Amino acid sequence: MNEMSKLAAGRISLAHGGGGKAMHDLIDQIFAARFKPQSREDQARLKHPALLEPGAQLAFTTDSFVVSPLEFPGGDIGKISVCGTVNDLAVGGALPLWLSAGFILEEGFDIATLVRIVESMVCTAEEAGVSIVTGDTKVVDKGKGDGVFINTSGVGVIPPGRELLASSVKAGDVAIVNHRLGDHGAAILAARGDLALSASIASDCQPLNGLMEAVLRVAPHVRAARDATRGGLASSLNEIAQEAGVGIEIEEKLLPIHSEVRGVSEILGLDPLYLANEGTLVLFVPEAEAEAALSAMKATSAGHQSAIIGRAVKDHPKRVIMQTLFGGRRIVDMLVGEQLPRIC
Amino acid sequence: MNEMSKLAAGRISLAHGGGGKAMHDLIDQIFAARFKPQSREDQARLKHPALLEPGAQLAFTTDSFVVSPLEFPGGDIGKISVCGTVNDLAVGGALPLWLSAGFILEEGFDIATLVRIVESMVCTAEEAGVSIVTGDTKVVDKGKGDGVFINTSGVGVIPPGRELLASSVKAGDVAIVNHRLGDHGAAILAARGDLALSASIASDCQPLNGLMEAVLRVAPHVRAARDATRGGLASSLNEIAQEAGVGIEIEEKLLPIHSEVRGVSEILGLDPLYLANEGTLVLFVPEAEAEAALSAMKATSAGHQSAIIGRAVKDHPKRVIMQTLFGGRRIVDMLVGEQLPRIC
Repeated sequence: MNEMSKLAAGRISLAHGGGGKAMHDLIDQIFAARFKPQSREDQARLKHPALLEPGAQLAFTTDSFVVSPLEFPGGDIGKISVCGTVNDLAVGGALPLWLSAGFILEEGFDIATLVRIVESMVCTAEEAGVSIVTGDTKVVDKGKGDGVFINTSGVGVIPPGRELLASSVKAGDVAIVNHRLGDHGAAILAARGDLALSASIASDCQPLNGLMEAVLRVAPHVRAARDATRGGLASSLNEIAQEAGVGIEIEEKLLPIHSEVRGVSEILGLDPLYLANEGTLVLFVPEAEAEAALSAMKATSAGHQSAIIGRAVKDHPKRVIMQTLFGGRRIVDMLVGEQLPRIC
Repeated sequence: MNEMSKLAAGRISLAHGGGGKAMHDLIDQIFAARFKPQSREDQARLKHPALLEPGAQLAFTTDSFVVSPLEFPGGDIGKISVCGTVNDLAVGGALPLWLSAGFILEEGFDIATLVRIVESMVCTAEEAGVSIVTGDTKVVDKGKGDGVFINTSGVGVIPPGRELLASSVKAGDVAIVNHRLGDHGAAILAARGDLALSASIASDCQPLNGLMEAVLRVAPHVRAARDATRGGLASSLNEIAQEAGVGIEIEEKLLPIHSEVRGVSEILGLDPLYLANEGTLVLFVPEAEAEAALSAMKATSAGHQSAIIGRAVKDHPKRVIMQTLFGGRRIVDMLVGEQLPRIC
C-alpha cells in the first residue's frame, strides 16, 4: 500500500487534530487532494467581478450538520452540508460562490467513510457550481462526538436590485413549493431502521440555486423564499407570516406529498408539514408572475414537482391556516418540541 | 422569573435544535439578544466600501473549536472562537469584517454557561472590531458531544497591493514574535487540573488584527505572518520553511518564554516550541524594515513582549535549526503525534 491508501484504510486518532505531522498528512491526503485549495495559507483569497458591481451585496451564512445516520437514501452528511449552505444563500437571491468546510472528527472514526463523505461534498459542490475554498479539522476523544460533524459556511453575491425579504410578502401573493414535502425526514427515519419503508423514499437533498435563478429570470418580483428544512414547511410559513404580518392560507389537497410519506406519518403520528426537507423551498410571488414562476420551476430538475399550495391573505395576520381535505380549517402552528432529532 | 431568565436557568434539550418554538426561543433570547443580527433571513447581507476597491481580495477562513475545558485562565471557548478566526484573517493581511457562529450543543448543557460564552464572544468581537452577523444552532444527544463546540468562519478584505505569502520569505528576512510562547498550552494544562501551577499563567488568547495593521503601516514589505496555534511556533516555522524553500535559524536565548512555562515543560517533557498559542504570531520581514516592525509591535497591547527570534537563511533549505542555550544546534522538526489534545 502506498502512504495514501494506508491512511485511508485507517481510523482517526487524536494526533490527526494535533497540528503536527499526522494532521498535515490527513489534510494533504484526504482533504487537499480532493478540495484542491489554491494555497496553504490560513485563509482563502478570492476575487469575483460580481462583488465589484455597485449595489451588489455580499451574502454570508453558516450551518453545522450533525445528521444521524451519516449516510441515508438520497444523500449523506457531506451532500447535505453543501446543499444546506448553498440553499441558504440561494433563497436570499444570492449567487453562491464559495464554501468553507470545518470537520469535527471523533477518535476512532473510519477514514474510508470520511473519504466517501468528502467525495460527496466535492461532487455536490460541482453540481451547484461552488468551490470549497478553505477548511479546518479538529478531533475529539472517543465518546465526545459522533463520527463526524461538518460545518459549512458560504459566501455569495446578491446582484444589485434584488431584495428578497420575508417581510415583503403581501396579501394576494401566491405560495409555491418545488418538491414533495417531508421526503428527507422520512428517509432519515427509514435509515435509522425504526420502521420498514420501501426504498422508494429518498431524501430530497439537492442544491436549489439553479432553480432560484430560473425563477428570478421570469419572475423578478419574487418577494421571498425559504428553505423548508428543520421544522418543515409549517415552520417556514409561520416565519414568513410573522415577519410579513400577513395571514397565510394553504390547501391540503394542493400539497405534494408522497403516498408513503403520508402513510408513515399517519402511523407514527407525525405530520408531513413539519417533516424536514433538504431541497425544498417555498416562495411567495405576486399573482401576476405566479404562472411564469411555476413554469420556470417545473422546467428545472429540482422543481418538476412544483405546485401552488396557497397564498398570503389579509385575514388572520401572522397565522397559517390550512383548508383540510375534509373541508375543515385548522391552524398550522409553529412546531412545538420536535419530531426527529438530528435530522440535518 | 420572566421568560428569558427561566430559559437561562435551564438546560439544553433536543427540542432546542428541532427547528420549532423551543429553538426559536433559544435563538431569540440567548443568541439574537446578544449578537443583534440585522434581520432574521437565512443569510446576512453585507456591504463594505473596502470590498469595492479594484484589486481588493476577499479573505475567507473557518475554524471549529473543541477546547476542553470550556473556560480557563485568560479565556474561554467563546473568546478563542473569535480570536482564532480574526487572527487567521489578520495574518494574511486582511481587515477582518464579519464572523459567523455555529453552535453544536450537547443535550443537558447548562444554558447559564452558554450565556457566559456568548457574552465573551460579543465582547471579544467588539474588541477586535468585527461583527458576528449570522449563526446556526444544532443539538446532539447526551454523550454525542461535549457541552458545546463552536465553529466560526470569517470574511475580511485584503486591501489592494498586499500579498503576504509564506512562499515569499527570503534568506536574510528577520523573524519576530509578538508574545511569550506556550502560555495557552500551559494554561489549558493547568485548567485541566493535571498539575499545580500558580495563577500567573494565563492563555495569550487575543485578537491580532490591530497589531498586524500597526506593523503593516511601518513595514509594508512584511513577507508573511502565521498564527502559531496548534503545533506551536515550531509548526509555523516548519510550514514557512517548506513553502518558501528557505532554512530558518532561531536562537533559544532570544525566545520569550515564561519561566513557569519553561519549568512545567521540563517536568512534563513538553517543549514550549510546540505548545499552542492563541494570540501569538510569527512574522518575517526584510531586514531593512525589521526594527520599525519590532517597534510598532511593541507599541501595541498585543505586542509589548515582541522579540526578534532569528531569521531565514540560505543554508539547510526547508529545515528549522535552533542554536541552543548551551551553544549546540538542533533540528526543530514538525510536531510528530501531539502534545495536548483539544487545545483549541
